[in-house]
Amino acid sequence: MCLISQAEVQSFIERCMIAVGTKPHHARSLAEVLVEGDRRGHYSHGLNRMDMYVKDIKTGICAKDGEPVIEKESAATALVDGKNLLGPVVGNFCMDLAIKKAKEVGIGWVVAHGSNHYGIAGYYAMQALKENMIGMSFTNTSPLVVPTRGKECTLGTNPISVAAPAKHGDSFVLDMATSAVALGKIELHDRRGDSIPEGWGCDPQGKLTTDPGRVLKGGGLLPIGGSEATGGYKGYGLGMMVEVFCGILAGAEYSRNVRKWKETNRVANLGQCFVAINPENFAPGFSDRMSDLLSIQRGLDPSDPDSPVLAAGDPERANMAKCEAMGGISYHLNVVNFMVSAGAVRDKWPHFAFGVRKHWQ
Amino acid sequence: MCLISQAEVQSFIERCMIAVGTKPHHARSLAEVLVEGDRRGHYSHGLNRMDMYVKDIKTGICAKDGEPVIEKESAATALVDGKNLLGPVVGNFCMDLAIKKAKEVGIGWVVAHGSNHYGIAGYYAMQALKENMIGMSFTNTSPLVVPTRGKECTLGTNPISVAAPAKHGDSFVLDMATSAVALGKIELHDRRGDSIPEGWGCDPQGKLTTDPGRVLKGGGLLPIGGSEATGGYKGYGLGMMVEVFCGILAGAEYSRNVRKWKETNRVANLGQCFVAINPENFAPGFSDRMSDLLSIQRGLDPSDPDSPVLAAGDPERANMAKCEAMGGISYHLNVVNFMVSAGAVRDKWPHFAFGVRKHWQ
Repeated sequence: MCLISQAEVQSFIERCMIAVGTKPHHARSLAEVLVEGDRRGHYSHGLNRMDMYVKDIKTGICAKDGEPVIEKESAATALVDGKNLLGPVVGNFCMDLAIKKAKEVGIGWVVAHGSNHYGIAGYYAMQALKENMIGMSFTNTSPLVVPTRGKECTLGTNPISVAAPAKHGDSFVLDMATSAVALGKIELHDRRGDSIPEGWGCDPQGKLTTDPGRVLKGGGLLPIGGSEATGGYKGYGLGMMVEVFCGILAGAEYSRNVRKWKETNRVANLGQCFVAINPENFAPGFSDRMSDLLSIQRGLDPSDPDSPVLAAGDPERANMAKCEAMGGISYHLNVVNFMVSAGAVRDKWPHFAFGVRKHWQ
Repeated sequence: MCLISQAEVQSFIERCMIAVGTKPHHARSLAEVLVEGDRRGHYSHGLNRMDMYVKDIKTGICAKDGEPVIEKESAATALVDGKNLLGPVVGNFCMDLAIKKAKEVGIGWVVAHGSNHYGIAGYYAMQALKENMIGMSFTNTSPLVVPTRGKECTLGTNPISVAAPAKHGDSFVLDMATSAVALGKIELHDRRGDSIPEGWGCDPQGKLTTDPGRVLKGGGLLPIGGSEATGGYKGYGLGMMVEVFCGILAGAEYSRNVRKWKETNRVANLGQCFVAINPENFAPGFSDRMSDLLSIQRGLDPSDPDSPVLAAGDPERANMAKCEAMGGISYHLNVVNFMVSAGAVRDKWPHFAFGVRKHWQ
């Protein structure tokens, strides 16, 4: 493991992206989302994925030039063409627009087509917290989830994020895939030779399996709830709901038409949805009630004394506090080495951009 | 079992409610929601619950007079005081308002405090389908769900409903509790002496149990996803999201402050949320894409040839077709007898309102 300051990771990602031709302000947007993913402990959506964005820009499958464009607009809604720009560029544009509308009429509901992977969904939802608003964000993604009773992947892990402000900077931040778990968790168990709990995935025949290898080879992830008996059809319904808000409402790719995971030979054309809701337009005292709601849950007597009851966003808050205390983000050395080597492909890239602060193991 | 025509059930509920002093148009609203619950096969939210509404009006815990009032309004949002009227009266008022706003500015987001049980959440979401819009509805409910890691019920089964129109009257209708299952399912297993699948409920110590008796006596329902390992914290987060949209945004009761299930000695003051989204404000061709999305899922090769892949709302559609073919709704005789006896409490009530069409077993 090694510890790298947030500013150094940010700058490294920016420089790598600029080196392949990304506009500096687009590179900054992407770096901010990825660093936030790492700070929150979602390493699968941080530096770890930088090579994918580098490749997208390098091959031209993702656009370098231009800005998102509003195609249709009302006081409370907008349809945006993301112009195939980097996901975070589209996401920031849309979320800013949603917040602007929510300031005026209490809500902004903005959907985009022509977008790309945008990192953690929570990043956009959380932008609304700065304005004391509720924020939401949804995106469709490559098909990895098998609908209840089926055996083919026709939905992505389609995340739902909802952030709501409480008092003194506290907040509720839900940021969840509508699959039982992320693909990365299955891969991790497979690499370690461990079995997976029943309810995470199915085999190529659509049968529940505890063998991660069968999930990865022709099977798929299960929706939240697992089997039909334990309520998996609800997770399937939620994945469909996200698709309605994203691919269907925006007129982007949807369902099994979304390009496959790690397929980069065609434009992604993802659909995404961004919402801001202004509590000022509803009952007074919103943040007081939010704080009380969070206190009720956090103050519960836990079933296991060593595992306190948490609210959505608390594990991420703990990870950020850890980063703060250590003065940086800790990465596996091989992630850093891989990214540095990816960065060394072209001469003008930073050869060893990282100032490794601390080194252990 | 006996078969009763829809019109007769509707009329029976209306007359029973009017007999205890409900305004005729309020009684009609309630009856419509309950009959729709039964037609869709959600018998726990239909005639079966009429006695609860009768009691609420009879004891005066629910208001007979007045209409809901808009307290605060923008072009796209509204805060409504339900004036402690019957849930369906508040629900219809709010959903109509949301649809009106969505016609003007593309979206209407309306929340109400001072409401009561409103039947199936899907009823309100589906009102938007008539206008070719997406509809959503959420309500908080009495605490029955134990948050992940806890052992006390601090959240209701807080349902999420989302309806989206496809072509030729087809639609996607998600209408789901954020608990793994409804309380009624646990009660049914308990009465039969059956065990329940792991992931439905926990005992008073917050440990997962397959004994329905332990869930009912001091335990609680689990959020969708079941245990923490299988993603129960996601269901917990969704239940909290519904609470944010309802009790918190509306300034109603929330979390464990909501009166207990079947407690009727104080006003419910539920919080509810109603949303309409106009696809016309987004990409053209919405209903074509919706139909295609539904076709993709329904057309999948099923894992078990006898269990076709469905879309949310399909089981209910099948139930409605069955009612249509039979010419009425089939009820257990004891439900009918109980309701008729409940209806006979006062002289002016209809003594035997039901024209029982067909009788079997």
